[in-house]
Amino acid sequence: MVRWPDPRLTDLFGLAHPIIQAPMGGSVTPELAAAVSNAGGLGSLGLTIDPPAEVREGCRAMRAATNAAFNINLFILPQAAAQSAEARATLRARLAPVYAELGLGEVPQPQHGAPAQGLSDEMLEALLAQRPPVLSFHFGLPGPAAMARLKAAGIKMICTASTVAEARLVEAAGCDAVIAQGWEAGGHRGAHAPNGPMDGVGTMALVPQVVDAVRIPVIAAGGIGDARGIAAAFMLGAAGVQMGTAFLHCPEASTDMRRRQLIALADGGDTVVTDAYSGRSARAYRSRFARDMVPFAGQFAGYGQMYDFTDRLCDAGAEDVASFHLYGQAAGLGRALPAAELVAELSEGALRLLGR
Amino acid sequence: MVRWPDPRLTDLFGLAHPIIQAPMGGSVTPELAAAVSNAGGLGSLGLTIDPPAEVREGCRAMRAATNAAFNINLFILPQAAAQSAEARATLRARLAPVYAELGLGEVPQPQHGAPAQGLSDEMLEALLAQRPPVLSFHFGLPGPAAMARLKAAGIKMICTASTVAEARLVEAAGCDAVIAQGWEAGGHRGAHAPNGPMDGVGTMALVPQVVDAVRIPVIAAGGIGDARGIAAAFMLGAAGVQMGTAFLHCPEASTDMRRRQLIALADGGDTVVTDAYSGRSARAYRSRFARDMVPFAGQFAGYGQMYDFTDRLCDAGAEDVASFHLYGQAAGLGRALPAAELVAELSEGALRLLGR
Repeated sequence: MVRWPDPRLTDLFGLAHPIIQAPMGGSVTPELAAAVSNAGGLGSLGLTIDPPAEVREGCRAMRAATNAAFNINLFILPQAAAQSAEARATLRARLAPVYAELGLGEVPQPQHGAPAQGLSDEMLEALLAQRPPVLSFHFGLPGPAAMARLKAAGIKMICTASTVAEARLVEAAGCDAVIAQGWEAGGHRGAHAPNGPMDGVGTMALVPQVVDAVRIPVIAAGGIGDARGIAAAFMLGAAGVQMGTAFLHCPEASTDMRRRQLIALADGGDTVVTDAYSGRSARAYRSRFARDMVPFAGQFAGYGQMYDFTDRLCDAGAEDVASFHLYGQAAGLGRALPAAELVAELSEGALRLLGR
Repeated sequence: MVRWPDPRLTDLFGLAHPIIQAPMGGSVTPELAAAVSNAGGLGSLGLTIDPPAEVREGCRAMRAATNAAFNINLFILPQAAAQSAEARATLRARLAPVYAELGLGEVPQPQHGAPAQGLSDEMLEALLAQRPPVLSFHFGLPGPAAMARLKAAGIKMICTASTVAEARLVEAAGCDAVIAQGWEAGGHRGAHAPNGPMDGVGTMALVPQVVDAVRIPVIAAGGIGDARGIAAAFMLGAAGVQMGTAFLHCPEASTDMRRRQLIALADGGDTVVTDAYSGRSARAYRSRFARDMVPFAGQFAGYGQMYDFTDRLCDAGAEDVASFHLYGQAAGLGRALPAAELVAELSEGALRLLGR
């Protein structure tokens, strides 16, 4: 058995390699996650705000495909602020020109209520019944009672932090490890309250400050695109990494063809953090709409509800005008390998750099 | 003699340690820079847009204090776009409320013309006469004729790049090494054309992509606060680092007391990139003015001229309202040691992590 320089994370989850494939709701298939777990990493399913039935379905699919540990990821949302009629009218007026440009007609009225706050009782019962080996949280944490029951059930828990203060909260809540997610990361920034696109801390600066602030193992995320980034994360004091974009290149991922083309050509400067599509800051391909909406950061509908306003924009097929292709700043380092080969290549490369 | 894993940068400049103290115009003293050079790193003087006489004075002061290599840094600016009377009126109206709040009276009219574009003939002659061992450029590069004469004079040259494309330009222009400056960096981002506060690439993602794009040695900068960051930079493929904020803590730096207090308490989330103070994107303490001006990014006066509008705001002493305390996201990792001790501690720590 290969010894990584810091065995805390591999020991915690029973992994050969301290590489977590990021959940990436909508882009990960059970086939991808199981391939990662079978290769010695930790495969993750991103269920975001899916209903409890999806936990049952996801755990079933994973257990059918692997005997190894896997991770179920959930978005834990804060109480949504209600949008006033006036704010909604302003928002619709702001979107009208791009709707007109793309020939999409009227800006729609919102169709959905705000997603539920926190972890529902039904979801808690589904988790306790299914007992995924690892559970990861994004945007926040369940309350103390739920955390205690999940912990008592033997489920290992981790949560994203985008600042030192959030990392301390994650530790205090009883999590087994914390994901320190830097500015470079693709997809949604796991800040525990909505914050501005610019409020990110780079991985190089964030990870050692989190390492110094908590005693639980730190998982570095954001901008880690190949073996060099994994080795660098260990030098910063991390006990493992979470990599998302690197796995978007895999044939097992459900990444659509257009995004595969974009990430194959990426050079780090082709993405931008925007809260204009989903209501929360997320790194995605640099569309004109995302850039145009920067001055209005923080003035969109809440997570979940904002998609009612932007789904049609993203479906219009005009990537450079409006699209929500989520990926990070290290996309250009990726290679289109099957997931098992990728995990092997990443591990071997990092261990070689680390002199193991 | 200690062998670093990649000797290209130490060999190039004749250093014991591949650690460049960032120039930081206004915060660096010859005493600080000479202490770094005498300790085996590369001390730098930040002359920004100072006149040629300062090159003579700086080289004289450095040669009086060290026999080792040192670096002179210059800002090489693009042609400034003229500000229309209308844009100036809009800008002054935008600044009026904060002037009023701080009791500063009328927003001033601009006093200075735009700084000269590129490298002046007078500056070139001063450089050729003084022959600093190393010359570093920020914001851009001198033209081919000047580059050729400086190179023929035996001056080693380096330049900041904030993207892969800029790194390719730096190599093509004949520089001996390139500084890959990430999002985390304090002070002015060395983008070769004015760009938005959000346009930064994190160090973790930028460095390996630059390493893959050029053949000259890469110097990692941004978010490197202690020995862990140096070791991480080497894992990413860098041949050395440039660290600024870490040296602001040194007694030899001219860092004012208020900024020393801020960096002693920093946690990575207390800075923001803003172009509202100088006209170019720079990372500084997160004042309310910097945050309020985010929607107007790109609408300020050019570099140099914008200070005519904001100097008084920064001098008012109301840090949380308006101030321009430049430092990076890894400030919290710093320790107030004399520069020679700091270089020794950083080198020993990094070499230990790298297994040397």
